[in-house]
Amino acid sequence: MQAGITASPVWINGERGASPDARDRGLAFGDGLFETMRFGPSGVYLLEYHLRRLEFGASRLRISLDPSLLRTEIGAAVESGRELFPEGVIKLILTRGVGQRGYKVSPGITSTRILMVSALPANPPEWSAEGVSVRFCDMRMGANSVLAGVKHLNRLEQVLARLEWDDPAIAEGLLADARGRIVEGVATNVFLVSGGRILTPVIDTCGIAGVMRQYIIDKAPEMVGQGVDVTSCEKGMFTGAREIFLCNSVVGVWPVARLAERKLQVGAVTRKIRDHVARLFGA
Amino acid sequence: MQAGITASPVWINGERGASPDARDRGLAFGDGLFETMRFGPSGVYLLEYHLRRLEFGASRLRISLDPSLLRTEIGAAVESGRELFPEGVIKLILTRGVGQRGYKVSPGITSTRILMVSALPANPPEWSAEGVSVRFCDMRMGANSVLAGVKHLNRLEQVLARLEWDDPAIAEGLLADARGRIVEGVATNVFLVSGGRILTPVIDTCGIAGVMRQYIIDKAPEMVGQGVDVTSCEKGMFTGAREIFLCNSVVGVWPVARLAERKLQVGAVTRKIRDHVARLFGA
Repeated sequence: MQAGITASPVWINGERGASPDARDRGLAFGDGLFETMRFGPSGVYLLEYHLRRLEFGASRLRISLDPSLLRTEIGAAVESGRELFPEGVIKLILTRGVGQRGYKVSPGITSTRILMVSALPANPPEWSAEGVSVRFCDMRMGANSVLAGVKHLNRLEQVLARLEWDDPAIAEGLLADARGRIVEGVATNVFLVSGGRILTPVIDTCGIAGVMRQYIIDKAPEMVGQGVDVTSCEKGMFTGAREIFLCNSVVGVWPVARLAERKLQVGAVTRKIRDHVARLFGA
Repeated sequence: MQAGITASPVWINGERGASPDARDRGLAFGDGLFETMRFGPSGVYLLEYHLRRLEFGASRLRISLDPSLLRTEIGAAVESGRELFPEGVIKLILTRGVGQRGYKVSPGITSTRILMVSALPANPPEWSAEGVSVRFCDMRMGANSVLAGVKHLNRLEQVLARLEWDDPAIAEGLLADARGRIVEGVATNVFLVSGGRILTPVIDTCGIAGVMRQYIIDKAPEMVGQGVDVTSCEKGMFTGAREIFLCNSVVGVWPVARLAERKLQVGAVTRKIRDHVARLFGA
């Protein structure tokens, strides 16, 4: 283990402290999926959303999955995790399994389940209260409609996009598709309020269909009295938007207070949705 | 270890029998590179080509690499491997290293070196002698010019393409880009002979710039008295080609004897290049 890396529990196929097989196809090809879930005193928040997205990805990639076994193992990992942290993050990696060399999938292969528990990231509390600074990334995401939406392990575009900046004052970068349309943040999804509408980019050629994004789409009528339009979003829509906010399952909602050179106010829609999500997390 | 998986030696950062860290970014994000090399009595074939491509990829992904350490470890692994197999395959995975959760790269991260030795794949000898059957894959590869050519660990497109067929009589599938231009095979590069020219698809928006492909491009004037044109290749160029062949560092050259419904002859250019590569492998 590298110096500076916090040791925290790992389970592989239910066995605590086990190590991955060097021949796992997750490592060889990124042949798998992941979920990053937040837990608190009441358990994993949005667990049903996470499991539904995992099943969607497993079906796209044709990876086998046992939901009831996963529920049991997630439950046991969270119970152990709560002995370390009152709130934290549980990351699940589901790979196609251990294989022979080569792309061909061996018959009878069984998927690998990896669970890791860690503390909540130590982000400044004002990022949620007053908003974050965001940049536009240079990276353009390739299009593949089969993989779009799936939270799979092929994430080099996100890694390289995150390498574009070092400034700790910038919380997130926005990623565009090959045509320059904004799709998402590196580790978040994005919403904007413009002309009285709430919009979020459609995830049909690239990007991840985030769990918190889906929760907000589902609950917006209840939270703010209007629905979300899921649509293509040109970059200009962001430079002209009245409100912008980011979300994911771990941080909840971050208002955007600055996008590139432009300052924004934390508006009424963003505040309501942020506060609703904070209550979901027991705040 | 899963039943049916051949146990063969693994080295991690020089330590034989070690296991990967579950937090390695190679597993989390496919954040790394690989090389699949063939070795024989004289050592690793085309080692300088492999190391050059690895350095190209490491520079694109901004992963640190120590070539002299890699050479030493590859040498030691091959020496052990030769006690098991007179000829075989040595696979190197180089990841960015072990990280905290999240895309951001921790300062001071050190890359992980994984080496695995295995036997040569047991392909029918007639595939090299008489040629192989090949199909067109439905999968279309997404475009990303930053990642094009790099043998990185984000290989879900190849995995899903290889899942398209089960028939063991079909050796390979051809993959196209989003516009339908043929770029490569799932695990090989492709060349064609047409109108007196030797052509291979340009690798500038997707695909892997294979080591054997580069060797053939470099040596074609010596092997067959003419150079290779590296260019965009529409699907129609394949359905009309006089000769087609596939190559990679492990199998050498496979003539294509059937492409979808069409039969092809093993032509003179293919035979000369195949035989030259076979001599490189000591045949």
